[in-house]
Amino acid sequence: MRTVWFFVLVCLSLAGLAWANKGLEFPRYDGKDRVLDIDNKNYRKALKAHRMLCLLYHAPAPASKELSKQFQMTELVLELAAQVLVNKDIGFGMVDSEKDAKVAKKLGLHEEGSVYIFKADRVIEFDGLLSADTLVEFLLDVLEDPVEVIDNSLELQAFDRMEEDIRLIGYFKSVKSEHFLAFKEAAEQFQPFIKFFATFDKSVAKELTLKMNEVDFYEPFMEEPVSIPDGPHTEDELVAFVTEHRRPTLRKLRAEDMFETWEDDLDGIHIVAFAEEEDPDGYEFLEILKEVARDNTQNPDLSIVWIDPDDFPLLIPYWEKTFKVDLYRPQIGIVNVTDADSLWMEMDGSDNLPSADELEDWIEDVLSGNVNTEDDDDDDDDD
Amino acid sequence: MRTVWFFVLVCLSLAGLAWANKGLEFPRYDGKDRVLDIDNKNYRKALKAHRMLCLLYHAPAPASKELSKQFQMTELVLELAAQVLVNKDIGFGMVDSEKDAKVAKKLGLHEEGSVYIFKADRVIEFDGLLSADTLVEFLLDVLEDPVEVIDNSLELQAFDRMEEDIRLIGYFKSVKSEHFLAFKEAAEQFQPFIKFFATFDKSVAKELTLKMNEVDFYEPFMEEPVSIPDGPHTEDELVAFVTEHRRPTLRKLRAEDMFETWEDDLDGIHIVAFAEEEDPDGYEFLEILKEVARDNTQNPDLSIVWIDPDDFPLLIPYWEKTFKVDLYRPQIGIVNVTDADSLWMEMDGSDNLPSADELEDWIEDVLSGNVNTEDDDDDDDDD
Repeated sequence: MRTVWFFVLVCLSLAGLAWANKGLEFPRYDGKDRVLDIDNKNYRKALKAHRMLCLLYHAPAPASKELSKQFQMTELVLELAAQVLVNKDIGFGMVDSEKDAKVAKKLGLHEEGSVYIFKADRVIEFDGLLSADTLVEFLLDVLEDPVEVIDNSLELQAFDRMEEDIRLIGYFKSVKSEHFLAFKEAAEQFQPFIKFFATFDKSVAKELTLKMNEVDFYEPFMEEPVSIPDGPHTEDELVAFVTEHRRPTLRKLRAEDMFETWEDDLDGIHIVAFAEEEDPDGYEFLEILKEVARDNTQNPDLSIVWIDPDDFPLLIPYWEKTFKVDLYRPQIGIVNVTDADSLWMEMDGSDNLPSADELEDWIEDVLSGNVNTEDDDDDDDDD
Repeated sequence: MRTVWFFVLVCLSLAGLAWANKGLEFPRYDGKDRVLDIDNKNYRKALKAHRMLCLLYHAPAPASKELSKQFQMTELVLELAAQVLVNKDIGFGMVDSEKDAKVAKKLGLHEEGSVYIFKADRVIEFDGLLSADTLVEFLLDVLEDPVEVIDNSLELQAFDRMEEDIRLIGYFKSVKSEHFLAFKEAAEQFQPFIKFFATFDKSVAKELTLKMNEVDFYEPFMEEPVSIPDGPHTEDELVAFVTEHRRPTLRKLRAEDMFETWEDDLDGIHIVAFAEEEDPDGYEFLEILKEVARDNTQNPDLSIVWIDPDDFPLLIPYWEKTFKVDLYRPQIGIVNVTDADSLWMEMDGSDNLPSADELEDWIEDVLSGNVNTEDDDDDDDDD
């Protein structure tokens, strides 16, 4: 019991270590057990009892002391999330991949370390950074309406600014329109990873050049959307289109699905670009990168992961060491996801970024196999 | 020693609880002691030994078991930051406000819970969220050049987008110009809170309508900058101007200086606006708010703190409970920083945001005292 109490105290840290400040008080874990140990007997009841059920699927608690502490910390992330969201009617639980193998199979859990969220008849997999704030933000997003309505041109500006996200927007007669309802059902299948918007306003639709019941699909960082052909669409048609087109040419690494993104490599390789958007150099490089992505968006073999180092400060020194690059400057390279072996584009001079053409040539070399991470493994002249 | 080892394990959590993933491995505290216990004997040596020294000024370790664990966690945030930044030549230490009162006085430390960073002959106070990632990001910013150079129109776009930050930009002949050097010295006084930019490029200067040796000052969210009068300027003139004008009419709450911002109230009161920029409603409200701020930027009594709930997910339920507001919608209110008592503008109907005029009227009522947090304290009809 002492150990448990100890963790209770420790959990302060998860929520930030700020000194108390009226109006800015970070939550502290209060010590109540809210996370269920899910088994064959209680899982049905748990599913019924809450608006949403959030289950961590995990390997059995390890025997080694160090790993077992880490395991308990993971549990505490769930406890803190459960406490913070106590008024939102969300259940939390843990499913052991050995002990509860049968339940896991029934529920369709398969990836250890992922959190599965059950909402109505849907299952959403969270494969992001398992910290309390990332998880809480994700769950709050899942609780929102699956479709956001755009009423006027100011709200349309907000929509236009979301170039990092995959998003769809449709023009419908009203909330009662059957085509809107199909759109909403489709939205629920992808919430919160892909954003769905609708408008019922003629002038907004005109600005978007949308006809009635037409739906546009926006790939991240592309200037023009693609109109989904052959509308009005059923839910299944929308789901099929999004499923086919969801891997973007350029995407940003985000805490909420970072491991999923990392696992979605092409032949074991990622093209990775580091660029700090807040930095003038980084911004310039990113604009060049977007240009290249737009020119090559039809190439199914091209998929670039953009990492803004500002989003992951604790990883910066790790990346600089592992990849042997200076992250104060923009970088682009290929990374082998199995061994983190990597090769980075040479940019000559400290002030010279590559042009879009030079970047395109380099990417072509990568895709054709002329540049690969094995080239430099036998000699040491790259250090 | 067991306790220390225990903390070592616990610290995994600080850095995120992700399962290992090649290329995305979050650091774990390795157990080495890097943080010094600063006292009268070692502080001079510590100052000399490093490029930067980073000292947490703290109240004596509390006797109660719970608070003492919290204290150790704070220490571990420093240890993890020290480990992550081990190649950057930054020293870390703790200064006890009772035991080391003399050292604290000599070093000019005064606010318990703040981290003081010594870099060359400057002292920078960090009064933000004491989590490893916020602190590491802050320290990496302090290590960057104090002045960023804008070379071309793409980089200028990056500059234009930073509307949340206080920033200055000057046009100079070259890096050797004495006026640029004065500008750079001034920049060091405010790094990393206020951003300084320079250009040596004629066409960039033309786009900014900057004459040689002219410096423009940008208040957050304002469309037009103010030209600092009577240039060319000495370092002292620049420092004096920035010091006088640094409190903005509208500012965003940021993790890196959130407690400092919160303490900078006007007569114990903050005007606080909640708006999620990623949400169409929130974006629209924020645009209205910016319009009001621009119209009233000359009013020294007006200072609004904008909080994007997305930046602080763990605080959302706390704020909703403390302030009795729904943060899925934009909100504006006044908050008493002593007791967190608050009063929020009524917005009728779920789809109606106030117009700029209505918002301005409400703010005028607040500033004149017609609306205040004590009004509703005797009756319960606000629930």
